[in-house]
Amino acid sequence: MLFSDRLAHAIKTKNSCLMLGLDPNPEKFPAGISHDAKGALEFCTKIIEKTHDLICGVKIQMAYWEAFGSEGIRAVEILLAAAKSLELITMVDGKRNDIGATAEAYARAYLADGPLGADCLTVNPFLGTDGITPFIKQCEDNDRGIFVLVRTSNPSADEFQGGKGEVSIRIAEKIDEWNITTQSPTNFYSSVGAVLGATLDPQLLQFFRDELPNTWFLCPGVGAQGATIKNLLSLRDEQGIGLIIPVSRAVLYAGSGENYALQSRQKMLELWEDQKI
Amino acid sequence: MLFSDRLAHAIKTKNSCLMLGLDPNPEKFPAGISHDAKGALEFCTKIIEKTHDLICGVKIQMAYWEAFGSEGIRAVEILLAAAKSLELITMVDGKRNDIGATAEAYARAYLADGPLGADCLTVNPFLGTDGITPFIKQCEDNDRGIFVLVRTSNPSADEFQGGKGEVSIRIAEKIDEWNITTQSPTNFYSSVGAVLGATLDPQLLQFFRDELPNTWFLCPGVGAQGATIKNLLSLRDEQGIGLIIPVSRAVLYAGSGENYALQSRQKMLELWEDQKI
Repeated sequence: MLFSDRLAHAIKTKNSCLMLGLDPNPEKFPAGISHDAKGALEFCTKIIEKTHDLICGVKIQMAYWEAFGSEGIRAVEILLAAAKSLELITMVDGKRNDIGATAEAYARAYLADGPLGADCLTVNPFLGTDGITPFIKQCEDNDRGIFVLVRTSNPSADEFQGGKGEVSIRIAEKIDEWNITTQSPTNFYSSVGAVLGATLDPQLLQFFRDELPNTWFLCPGVGAQGATIKNLLSLRDEQGIGLIIPVSRAVLYAGSGENYALQSRQKMLELWEDQKI
Repeated sequence: MLFSDRLAHAIKTKNSCLMLGLDPNPEKFPAGISHDAKGALEFCTKIIEKTHDLICGVKIQMAYWEAFGSEGIRAVEILLAAAKSLELITMVDGKRNDIGATAEAYARAYLADGPLGADCLTVNPFLGTDGITPFIKQCEDNDRGIFVLVRTSNPSADEFQGGKGEVSIRIAEKIDEWNITTQSPTNFYSSVGAVLGATLDPQLLQFFRDELPNTWFLCPGVGAQGATIKNLLSLRDEQGIGLIIPVSRAVLYAGSGENYALQSRQKMLELWEDQKI
């Protein structure tokens, strides 16, 4: 099944565009969880088990797992398998980027059937089309997806993304081109999504939606970073799809005692209510 | 010892600005090497052993190792330890990029004393200063370095780096600012280097050298990508430092039979002759 169709199916089945972000920061672990890869795996597995009916998928933030070295990467392999067995969409948030044979190796790592193979991967576009096409090739061959950084919402985003967003607009134009080969005949979305900060000006978000009506949007920044779900919902289409909202810290660290996973569920349920159709 | 001083020492001791790039592509392995992480480790270890007297360090291209999953990352840990025991400078070529706590996690992973800790890391600047300062913090605290993408030489580099290099020039200006806190009082270089494609127009390379007289340059593209060492040597200063030239495929795959490591040494020796002072 095409990536877009799989993602749309997961969102509709769960009535949820929420994705659980797995960013295990040992400093924030509840008491009793060890500050290593084993602890991170135990912690994240429990929260997945308690929230999987409320989310369309999981987003694995590689930085935190890489900080544990190879044991962290082994934990990612286990988490990916666990998420797939629960029929969740799996996203590796690695913002990978390179060209030529190196980009092909990243694409093989995350968008094929190896131990780190996921449904989709976040990608940084700085190197232009040459840094994107090797990933698209795997999307085409294996029905996977990528999410390309378009506009981030951090204070220094202007520096190299264009003071008026000039670079970001060019990236959006390119996404439209890159999306030609993977469009779903059912829902019209393609395999190349866009990452847009959830705390961006709502008018700017709407501008990008108008530019890219058939592109999946991934909008990080809800919760800990201050954006609200309500402000993002107009980015969905009339079918209720087109948008993924990752929630990480606000859910992961909702509780700190023995019942942390239940408190995470409670928080996820609140967020789910905010976006259900 | 400051990163810049360590790197300068390695270059002067070996009379070599060459760095061995470890990009293990199984399709190109010599006969008899298994197409897995174990084979890649065996292959790269042998070539390091045969070339370490001719190079200042090793550059580990993470993409290829990630393609093997956690076993590949375990191999990276072993390679890093082996390179350190040979007093080689270690670079992780991961082009990592993110902001806030996530960038801190990447910086902790690669620029501290964990299992993947190296002397330096390549970084993508798309997110601006917010995506760089967490890495600089580790450079300051632990005497490490980063190499920031400034201008790549692939055909689509123009798309988002500026048709006239506008974005790349802004990045260079920022590197000058970022470099304030880590300058070596001995050789005047700092911890924030620049990545510039070796196949760029020599005039453009010289422009960036004039803009950044005290910045380490990492110039990939020699060999397989067509650039020559001779064209890069004017980027060194009168002490013979300031430049790192990574060589990967041209050396790794110089031979294909039983004596592949000797053939790699022969190729590295030729390249070494081209750049010795």
